[in-house]
Amino acid sequence: MYWFYKNGPKNNLCDVKGLRVGHVSLNNDSQGIHTGVTAILPPGSNPYQEKCIAAAHCINGFGKPLGLEQVRELGQIESPILLTNTLSIGDATRGLMDYMLDIDPNIGRPTTLNPLVLECNDGSINDIRRLALQPKDALEALTHAQEDFSQGSVGAGMGMVCYGLKGGIGSASRLVDIHETTYTIGALVLSNFGATKDLTILGEKLGPKLATEERKDRGSIVTILATDLPIDSRQVLRLCKRVQSGIARTGAFTSHGSGEFALGFTTCKTPSLLDQDLDPAFQATVEAVEEAILSSLYHNESKTAYTGEIFQSLEDRARDKKVSLPSYR
Amino acid sequence: MYWFYKNGPKNNLCDVKGLRVGHVSLNNDSQGIHTGVTAILPPGSNPYQEKCIAAAHCINGFGKPLGLEQVRELGQIESPILLTNTLSIGDATRGLMDYMLDIDPNIGRPTTLNPLVLECNDGSINDIRRLALQPKDALEALTHAQEDFSQGSVGAGMGMVCYGLKGGIGSASRLVDIHETTYTIGALVLSNFGATKDLTILGEKLGPKLATEERKDRGSIVTILATDLPIDSRQVLRLCKRVQSGIARTGAFTSHGSGEFALGFTTCKTPSLLDQDLDPAFQATVEAVEEAILSSLYHNESKTAYTGEIFQSLEDRARDKKVSLPSYR
Amino acid sequence: MYWFYKNGPKNNLCDVKGLRVGHVSLNNDSQGIHTGVTAILPPGSNPYQEKCIAAAHCINGFGKPLGLEQVRELGQIESPILLTNTLSIGDATRGLMDYMLDIDPNIGRPTTLNPLVLECNDGSINDIRRLALQPKDALEALTHAQEDFSQGSVGAGMGMVCYGLKGGIGSASRLVDIHETTYTIGALVLSNFGATKDLTILGEKLGPKLATEERKDRGSIVTILATDLPIDSRQVLRLCKRVQSGIARTGAFTSHGSGEFALGFTTCKTPSLLDQDLDPAFQATVEAVEEAILSSLYHNESKTAYTGEIFQSLEDRARDKKVSLPSYR
Amino acid sequence: MYWFYKNGPKNNLCDVKGLRVGHVSLNNDSQGIHTGVTAILPPGSNPYQEKCIAAAHCINGFGKPLGLEQVRELGQIESPILLTNTLSIGDATRGLMDYMLDIDPNIGRPTTLNPLVLECNDGSINDIRRLALQPKDALEALTHAQEDFSQGSVGAGMGMVCYGLKGGIGSASRLVDIHETTYTIGALVLSNFGATKDLTILGEKLGPKLATEERKDRGSIVTILATDLPIDSRQVLRLCKRVQSGIARTGAFTSHGSGEFALGFTTCKTPSLLDQDLDPAFQATVEAVEEAILSSLYHNESKTAYTGEIFQSLEDRARDKKVSLPSYR
Repeated sequence: MYWFYKNGPKNNLCDVKGLRVGHVSLNNDSQGIHTGVTAILPPGSNPYQEKCIAAAHCINGFGKPLGLEQVRELGQIESPILLTNTLSIGDATRGLMDYMLDIDPNIGRPTTLNPLVLECNDGSINDIRRLALQPKDALEALTHAQEDFSQGSVGAGMGMVCYGLKGGIGSASRLVDIHETTYTIGALVLSNFGATKDLTILGEKLGPKLATEERKDRGSIVTILATDLPIDSRQVLRLCKRVQSGIARTGAFTSHGSGEFALGFTTCKTPSLLDQDLDPAFQATVEAVEEAILSSLYHNESKTAYTGEIFQSLEDRARDKKVSLPSYR
Repeated sequence: MYWFYKNGPKNNLCDVKGLRVGHVSLNNDSQGIHTGVTAILPPGSNPYQEKCIAAAHCINGFGKPLGLEQVRELGQIESPILLTNTLSIGDATRGLMDYMLDIDPNIGRPTTLNPLVLECNDGSINDIRRLALQPKDALEALTHAQEDFSQGSVGAGMGMVCYGLKGGIGSASRLVDIHETTYTIGALVLSNFGATKDLTILGEKLGPKLATEERKDRGSIVTILATDLPIDSRQVLRLCKRVQSGIARTGAFTSHGSGEFALGFTTCKTPSLLDQDLDPAFQATVEAVEEAILSSLYHNESKTAYTGEIFQSLEDRARDKKVSLPSYR
Repeated sequence: MYWFYKNGPKNNLCDVKGLRVGHVSLNNDSQGIHTGVTAILPPGSNPYQEKCIAAAHCINGFGKPLGLEQVRELGQIESPILLTNTLSIGDATRGLMDYMLDIDPNIGRPTTLNPLVLECNDGSINDIRRLALQPKDALEALTHAQEDFSQGSVGAGMGMVCYGLKGGIGSASRLVDIHETTYTIGALVLSNFGATKDLTILGEKLGPKLATEERKDRGSIVTILATDLPIDSRQVLRLCKRVQSGIARTGAFTSHGSGEFALGFTTCKTPSLLDQDLDPAFQATVEAVEEAILSSLYHNESKTAYTGEIFQSLEDRARDKKVSLPSYR
Repeated sequence: MYWFYKNGPKNNLCDVKGLRVGHVSLNNDSQGIHTGVTAILPPGSNPYQEKCIAAAHCINGFGKPLGLEQVRELGQIESPILLTNTLSIGDATRGLMDYMLDIDPNIGRPTTLNPLVLECNDGSINDIRRLALQPKDALEALTHAQEDFSQGSVGAGMGMVCYGLKGGIGSASRLVDIHETTYTIGALVLSNFGATKDLTILGEKLGPKLATEERKDRGSIVTILATDLPIDSRQVLRLCKRVQSGIARTGAFTSHGSGEFALGFTTCKTPSLLDQDLDPAFQATVEAVEEAILSSLYHNESKTAYTGEIFQSLEDRARDKKVSLPSYR
């Protein structure tokens, strides 16, 4: 068995109790629209009132996230998190504003809201200049979020490309025992990075066997970490810093153009764990991120871009190249 | 004379050659709308092609700026800068996207754009929940930007409150001689911070004489620095870090809720100055920021908020309180 | 009255209960030795066992502090703090190691110690290349620390120059009421920065009247903050970030060569305050730092450097220049 | 072949022209002394005069490096770099001061020196509380540095433990072609981190087969990067940030107690490369770090600690466990 830590029952972000995820996918072949939005909701009905302890980490800052400054200063989130394509940050933000103003009449009286919107560039598959995503799409992803969610080419993951193959949404979870209590760590990635030749699956460098023509490493990865660990924001940040190690285990080197950000939060309001007890959490985070990336590749199908170019799924590519894919679980 | 350094001919941000500033002000008493957007354009017709060396600094992160992560990573800006109210970031961003996609067909093919949108909360005067600002307003501010611009309650400054008095847009510039060359440093602030009792003008603590009832220190300040100094992004950051000292000289202590960010850039593409030569630039930056804040107070008139509350101008308050205001120049 | 907040009974760092400060001063005119070391001890007999929640902030990184990285990562200190001259960091560190190894046999079995040693360059007055300070001097400062301590040209302050005048150790404290409890904030500075022309006392720019020939702004300032506020390390950091504002109020602009660092800690082990309650603490920090700097100037006498140059005290300079000095309290 | 990039002729840090490395090893079985110091000298005879563009990155701040603050602020190094054991930072610093004061009479007249001293805790093998290392040992390592140097249990590496096996000094280099010019990147690590069960060699998780009893992941890793790339300090920092990915490929997850720092510099004085050209440099950095760590394990012999415990070399352990070790080249 490759993994040290057990996964939770769903093996995804929603193993952390109370979380919900919603997708809206836009897919219109004739218009070249292959994009979407994914919403991650912390527990409770009003995140503005029930703020979660949080932290944010920039691995490589070639990206355009909104909201991380305040997370760093105050160590908390007060909004759901949206993922979408780079040029649609504005529209997604507007949708998030509409959603939050609706559920809380105090926002703007006078204190405002810190919206959290992160993105990857899906412009290889999606005709991104169309700005197809509307505020109402973000609103719908937020409204319809639930504990069960799909992975792969769905929501914000619709047009993403990972290791030159079809990427998108991936998720995994891990359980760690600290002082005889079991805690959960969940990771959800929007995977849109890497070159095929670098792909490493469970330590095996399959990339060179899977690669076709040279394709530049391009793109980004956003990682959302959630947990129920009783830790403060400084400690959540320490978890977020381990995300880079999880990414590295899948083979990539964090290229120049790869915007890599980690945003983490805990649903527990009362920090109590000491730093010296966190090693299982650190290692489990690395594992969850590694598996979440693989999961985004395994849960996928080949897709034709607006340009006509086909982005194969890992499975299809492996078949073409006669490479035997390991089961990643 | 209070100031050590001479100001430029305009004594504002546009003393840095090639810069343009545009405002769109929304002012509708019956609807309680008192907000707007201000655009700052770096030199040239296409900032995506003519990137400027830049840096960003967070003094107190209770704010929601968009675009600073990439500035930190790559040390450059590739977009105009928008200032607006906190809840309108999304709409302003969409307007900026429309503007940039129009002037450059390469954006999103496949590399995207890093939009720069910063904000303060004008919710004391403006009925901010109305989300009155439209993408087209941002577009108009960008399209109509010019070298001459107004200060005070204009553009994003329309509904801002500074030291409990009417604040908004302020600007100033300084000239520094380094190795027998004269360089310009310009500062533009969106002032929306401080409590009246703390206001200090040219070193004189006039606040206690000007204060009426106790009013909590609230709000934020965004500072844009521009220069033509031949410096790299690390050195621009060193300038940005001096912004806090300029703010402190006007009396405020950077309160919990005051989102304070500095974004700086240079129009010179070829860094050559050594760090040991930068002291005049550092000190001139502090002065320019101090004066820009004062300028936002002096260039103003009293204004009635959507709630009926009146926010007096510095001049009106001084008259009421029989305080003799020093000329700040 | 210039100050908003009341000071504690001692009006120095040791108003925070349990703290001790020790100085060893080396002063040998014939050898040109004018240096020393100052020790700040957190409460208790063994700081390695009774770690304090802490934070560190770099305002301008032209300095050589030891120990700040681990403070940032773990949010705590586990060692006394030493201040000394720049070239003596090594010897001071050795003295601190000897001290700590003696009081705790567990250090190095196997976990080690994070020593905290900060410095300013006293090379204008002290013949710094002599490396006069010995590990035993640091040890003595640690061993003889007590609740009462001197300010001015004592300990690490012996050879320091502030605003072109004799500087050194200064300290002040403030009391703040939050939720009906009174807390104490203490600041101790090692002042070695600024040019005379910039000196501002209680808002009055006396520098130009006090200045003699042009003297470059040079040197640094280390600030130690201590408090008994129930806050976590992120919040201590927020206090540390206000130190720059306190420095700015005395007139300086944080010059290129001014290494400016703030190291803060709280003696309370159980964080409970919300960020929105911290404004009095933020403003009191600014005041305490401002007064501590002034205190380092007022508690001083003129001193002859190893080069024969005389560095006047503020009092002597004011008498020469016929400037009437305000009482800073 | 596992590696994408070619190594330089020496396959170590000194493939970057002009660099020298010196070791002093202290090894006294009867006294339990197994420690040392390693010096890395940038090109030229006086690094204080010939400063190199540099950057520093903290991966996990459980460590006590000296000098990184100023590297971050000014983007340069002006001193050789020392590596040693944690408790000997003070003595090593004193030795470095002696060395530098001797070669440059301007230091301290009045500008001082930013010494660079990094450390790992060798207390599992070395009786670290003895503080055996003397300033003269550091001086000797500096004075005798040369282009050829040993790896493994030598210098600062004498008492280090990596993945539960004997660690220490390791080094590797890579050549990258950018715009038809070949540049060199060298990495030197002081390896003292990881648990045996996590060890991954060339992607193969051999750790579980090599592990004996459970041993906590403990310790740290310092990485020195050198290059001749024409890049500025912001870009050197981008290289340093990839070090974590190199570490991750050897299997570790950057545990709580693992102080992980990267310090990088370039010997080229004239930055000219654009960020978009740096991908080969980023990927080669990851490879060089990965190989340097492996090299520290392969260049080693089993060693008995002062406690009597034996720390096996990778080779000896593999033989005991009948594990076939891959050649790492």
